[in-house]
Amino acid sequence: MTDTGNTTERMTVSIVGGSGYTGGELLRLLLDHPGVTVQAVTSRANAGEPLHRKHPNLRGRSDLLFTAPDELEKCDVVFLCMPHGRAAKEIDRYNELGDLIVDLSADFRLRDAETYKQWYREDHPAPHRLADVAYGLPELNRTNIAGSRFVSGVGCNATAMNLALAPLAKAGLIERVIADIKVGSSEAGAEPSASSHHPERSRAVRSYALTGHRHAAEVHQMLGDFTLDVTVTAIEMVRGVLCTAHVIPTETLAMKDLWKLYRGMYRAEPFVRLVCERTGLFRLPDPAVLGGSNYADVGFGIDDRTGRVVALCAIDNLMKGAAGSAVQAMNIALGFDETAGLTFPGLHPA
Amino acid sequence: MTDTGNTTERMTVSIVGGSGYTGGELLRLLLDHPGVTVQAVTSRANAGEPLHRKHPNLRGRSDLLFTAPDELEKCDVVFLCMPHGRAAKEIDRYNELGDLIVDLSADFRLRDAETYKQWYREDHPAPHRLADVAYGLPELNRTNIAGSRFVSGVGCNATAMNLALAPLAKAGLIERVIADIKVGSSEAGAEPSASSHHPERSRAVRSYALTGHRHAAEVHQMLGDFTLDVTVTAIEMVRGVLCTAHVIPTETLAMKDLWKLYRGMYRAEPFVRLVCERTGLFRLPDPAVLGGSNYADVGFGIDDRTGRVVALCAIDNLMKGAAGSAVQAMNIALGFDETAGLTFPGLHPA
Amino acid sequence: MTDTGNTTERMTVSIVGGSGYTGGELLRLLLDHPGVTVQAVTSRANAGEPLHRKHPNLRGRSDLLFTAPDELEKCDVVFLCMPHGRAAKEIDRYNELGDLIVDLSADFRLRDAETYKQWYREDHPAPHRLADVAYGLPELNRTNIAGSRFVSGVGCNATAMNLALAPLAKAGLIERVIADIKVGSSEAGAEPSASSHHPERSRAVRSYALTGHRHAAEVHQMLGDFTLDVTVTAIEMVRGVLCTAHVIPTETLAMKDLWKLYRGMYRAEPFVRLVCERTGLFRLPDPAVLGGSNYADVGFGIDDRTGRVVALCAIDNLMKGAAGSAVQAMNIALGFDETAGLTFPGLHPA
Amino acid sequence: MTDTGNTTERMTVSIVGGSGYTGGELLRLLLDHPGVTVQAVTSRANAGEPLHRKHPNLRGRSDLLFTAPDELEKCDVVFLCMPHGRAAKEIDRYNELGDLIVDLSADFRLRDAETYKQWYREDHPAPHRLADVAYGLPELNRTNIAGSRFVSGVGCNATAMNLALAPLAKAGLIERVIADIKVGSSEAGAEPSASSHHPERSRAVRSYALTGHRHAAEVHQMLGDFTLDVTVTAIEMVRGVLCTAHVIPTETLAMKDLWKLYRGMYRAEPFVRLVCERTGLFRLPDPAVLGGSNYADVGFGIDDRTGRVVALCAIDNLMKGAAGSAVQAMNIALGFDETAGLTFPGLHPA
Repeated sequence: MTDTGNTTERMTVSIVGGSGYTGGELLRLLLDHPGVTVQAVTSRANAGEPLHRKHPNLRGRSDLLFTAPDELEKCDVVFLCMPHGRAAKEIDRYNELGDLIVDLSADFRLRDAETYKQWYREDHPAPHRLADVAYGLPELNRTNIAGSRFVSGVGCNATAMNLALAPLAKAGLIERVIADIKVGSSEAGAEPSASSHHPERSRAVRSYALTGHRHAAEVHQMLGDFTLDVTVTAIEMVRGVLCTAHVIPTETLAMKDLWKLYRGMYRAEPFVRLVCERTGLFRLPDPAVLGGSNYADVGFGIDDRTGRVVALCAIDNLMKGAAGSAVQAMNIALGFDETAGLTFPGLHPA
Repeated sequence: MTDTGNTTERMTVSIVGGSGYTGGELLRLLLDHPGVTVQAVTSRANAGEPLHRKHPNLRGRSDLLFTAPDELEKCDVVFLCMPHGRAAKEIDRYNELGDLIVDLSADFRLRDAETYKQWYREDHPAPHRLADVAYGLPELNRTNIAGSRFVSGVGCNATAMNLALAPLAKAGLIERVIADIKVGSSEAGAEPSASSHHPERSRAVRSYALTGHRHAAEVHQMLGDFTLDVTVTAIEMVRGVLCTAHVIPTETLAMKDLWKLYRGMYRAEPFVRLVCERTGLFRLPDPAVLGGSNYADVGFGIDDRTGRVVALCAIDNLMKGAAGSAVQAMNIALGFDETAGLTFPGLHPA
Repeated sequence: MTDTGNTTERMTVSIVGGSGYTGGELLRLLLDHPGVTVQAVTSRANAGEPLHRKHPNLRGRSDLLFTAPDELEKCDVVFLCMPHGRAAKEIDRYNELGDLIVDLSADFRLRDAETYKQWYREDHPAPHRLADVAYGLPELNRTNIAGSRFVSGVGCNATAMNLALAPLAKAGLIERVIADIKVGSSEAGAEPSASSHHPERSRAVRSYALTGHRHAAEVHQMLGDFTLDVTVTAIEMVRGVLCTAHVIPTETLAMKDLWKLYRGMYRAEPFVRLVCERTGLFRLPDPAVLGGSNYADVGFGIDDRTGRVVALCAIDNLMKGAAGSAVQAMNIALGFDETAGLTFPGLHPA
Repeated sequence: MTDTGNTTERMTVSIVGGSGYTGGELLRLLLDHPGVTVQAVTSRANAGEPLHRKHPNLRGRSDLLFTAPDELEKCDVVFLCMPHGRAAKEIDRYNELGDLIVDLSADFRLRDAETYKQWYREDHPAPHRLADVAYGLPELNRTNIAGSRFVSGVGCNATAMNLALAPLAKAGLIERVIADIKVGSSEAGAEPSASSHHPERSRAVRSYALTGHRHAAEVHQMLGDFTLDVTVTAIEMVRGVLCTAHVIPTETLAMKDLWKLYRGMYRAEPFVRLVCERTGLFRLPDPAVLGGSNYADVGFGIDDRTGRVVALCAIDNLMKGAAGSAVQAMNIALGFDETAGLTFPGLHPA
């Protein structure tokens, strides 16, 4: 699928903050990527330890040890997987270390400092860099990513909403959206907490963000203004997001209108699949079959009684919602085949 | 909690179609109920077998064997747990056998034959009986149940919607509702199918009723007309319903308005709890702690940016959504303490 | 099932350390117990908060608030649910406060200080009290519990082993046992840790105690000396223990021998059920149907090729393996009906 | 990892009975395999349908449709994934159609017709072919596979036992083994049944084969005679096997002896990893991190009190226990790089 496998010269990449789930997923992708070599993975807490101590699936796949962040050396690409706020504070340092920066935190997703302040309730620590950033969702921003040296990762829930809604939004057909999003436990990261304690989290159906979820800002940035309500419910699942976007359209729509819009936008996308059949167990998007894959499965329906459109998007939050989109963006920025390193299709059953 | 325990004369009850999940749950409740004695439990397929062959939790709790339906004798109360359409066809026979009929199927939930036909796409088999039925949701229909000899069970998803929305609906504050409902696998009953096969159903996030769910009719019947969209998503859970009702209100509401409305309606309800705190893991309704209990946990929130109200209701679909409400209705109809046999609080952790 | 419901004089009970899972389960049982009144529940960290902040299933069931441990006043029964080692250090104080002490920690399970040191690798903090303690497993120690003022709780895995093996051990038929025990996440308690983090613990099949599990000491104490190997594997489950005890017998046994032994010992036990049928989904013990119940389900089989006997016992670790046995022991010690407060049968499906 | 990617001439492969889980997993592997092209996939029930109707993860990955079995044409390799007994009955036909046959059923795993009859309780339908078959477990039979035109697949539980025990067995150190095996729901295949119904199977801990599991025969065939007891317990998991082999050794062993034996046998194996650390969450084999990978993770421990050795092996039953080993065997038989198409490392978290 990629013609980069034969290049004698591989790009060097480093991961800053590589002991968490996003870092682990990046490692899984990059260690097998035909165009790059992983040079360093930092983790303050795990420096000196083999990668499999935090990422047991990678046992036997690499001789690398975690290193301390200050030992990082120059390389071609630097992925930043740091806690919220850290990347923005240290961005100038990392800018020196890599030719391409891909930041997977939320720090540089919003290009407007005022909007950032409104949603994150603090001043942006590095507003001078915001103009340089390309939002890393290829399906909606491929051209900007292609020329960029600084790419921001995407919010996982934002991605599910953006891909569910883009065809409708671009056509100006949205009056109001209520996005009811179901998420797994890996969204909250690798740090244990009272809310992630297995006896409490197991089979919970927890309305953890009833209103006001920050990812709404990323949707408005990419798709424009319409009334958008977001509720996020944590369910029994580790990986995965299902966005059920209930859309009140500006005009009455029929299924064939929706097919035309969605096919029109996604026909050539390598990682968007339309999943919208009349019957069968797998007729609509379900994150259960997407673990480890970079696909976004998109589907839709119409309630003839009320005119409501339902737009669905399922992704793996750690892949299309984080590491997968980040590698896809890197591929675009570096001129690799866009699918390089991203061809695992997911498992069934899982 | 009940003063019926000392009565020397217990009522006799029989269950028709007692091998399924609703039948099993009725048995669990009725075998320990202080005011009744279970006389017979029918199951064509399991006649002659001990109850624990289908209901392993009841091993050692009863010497009853399943009997054939045609061996049923007269008793005080007959619970019907038959497949859709059967109760309506055989209702005249069962009417002879019991002084009080409680039908847990969907056959007699809608009091209007036209509405029935619209949602179930067939003529009602026994329209002459519809006028006699009291819809068995005590919180909204207690008075009618009290005087009735024929009570209909409730739809589980309908119940979650009805209890989430009733205070707003009764106050005329609903313009539009989008009910996004999360359900467990026991909703589909005890019969195996391709969709219930464990490798497929495990961790599925399956939009099984994107639009047009029949339980909407029960909401309109109890709460009146407003635009109501329903989407049901099957998630990894066995028992449990969480209704996330996204409400566009007719006027701007504040949290204190909601507290007043919900407290006003539910203050004296023995099985409705308001769960709506600012912090904590258990601040909003979650079916995970309701397994086996008859509680409906109700909560709410407001999105200040958009005015949207979110009304939540969590129940155990087999209890408050089926057998629990049925026993509660029986208690009312027979003049027992309303909570008799229904005091199990649920488990935590579960 | 109990004749204590009508006594005008209820016993007062307090729980020390009531914010954890064992404390919560005790509360669930004692709040509905016909012979006692809960006087106080202590929790240093949660003093002043309502019980439902830690035990959401008990919302609306009690007006009690958690209190500080030093505010505890005299009462009839004190249940101790403290971290390992604490009960032994503070036992003299609690001895003053209650007429009957039931300690659910591991501190007083072993009656011999040397054995304690061997397994827990420290000197026992209160060896002078060991002679007073009755091990709280009614099925094997009912007589001693009846006359005791100081009862020790049981190890959950020990209980599953003891009940699986007792009939064989008492008959001197065991040469060697390999107990392969499957446990849920609630065994590790209510404190979050890296190992209980949902993304790590979910669907884990983790050999967390390959050898040397301490509960073996409780088996030797109750059943005598034979070679006993124990391995504990954590599986996807919250509550529940299944002990699969592989027994190499001292002589060749047939199924009818086993039936005779197990029926002989357990015939009159209110909480032991023999589950051993030839066919059917529920033919052998499974903790999945025991959540919240005090039953121990016991079954067995023989491998005709090798002579191996397999003895199985399934329990809910928080019930028969902790709070349930503790309340059963209290019932015995106080002269209540042994089943008082313990009649919930468990749920199916769950 | 493979040099076959550049060959202009790919081998053609067909799958007979490709709608089940093993067939789906073979498809996932073979569609991305650098040395082969999938020519046909048969399914009587699904003929004419696209592959994703049964294998939703493969949506968009192939234009193939299922075909009827009798339309199968000649090709280089034929994989048989048929129900028990069918392959043996039709083997002569398939022998004509492919140069290499890989049968994933149990029909040709035992090379001795008498042994087959003893375990499967029927005469072998094609005893004349047994001498031609190479048992497809590369780690124990690589040389025979290399020269073979007829390879049998492996039993998943047999594979976990064989790989856990081989180093001890080959050294003659086993006196007796009790293998306690934990398995997921996909082991039972893709056909729904009462035992796979989600409400019943979810969180079940079901002793489904207490004694006499047929896979023991494959262990004896590969490792020789010793007393072997097998118990299989179904737990909440879809993919995965953990074999906990409790070994009574013929002599006292120390950890360094085990390290020497296991390293000696598995040092150069591409798909066996020794997982045996003193601390850490991932210190022993766990199938939870092996989904989709072809690794067998092997570990061990010793109980110093009793001398028991515990040998562990975790695999994905659909991969190393079925399709993965089958493709690995094909790679060996055809002279491909042994790891071709099998490099996916598994996911964490999963």
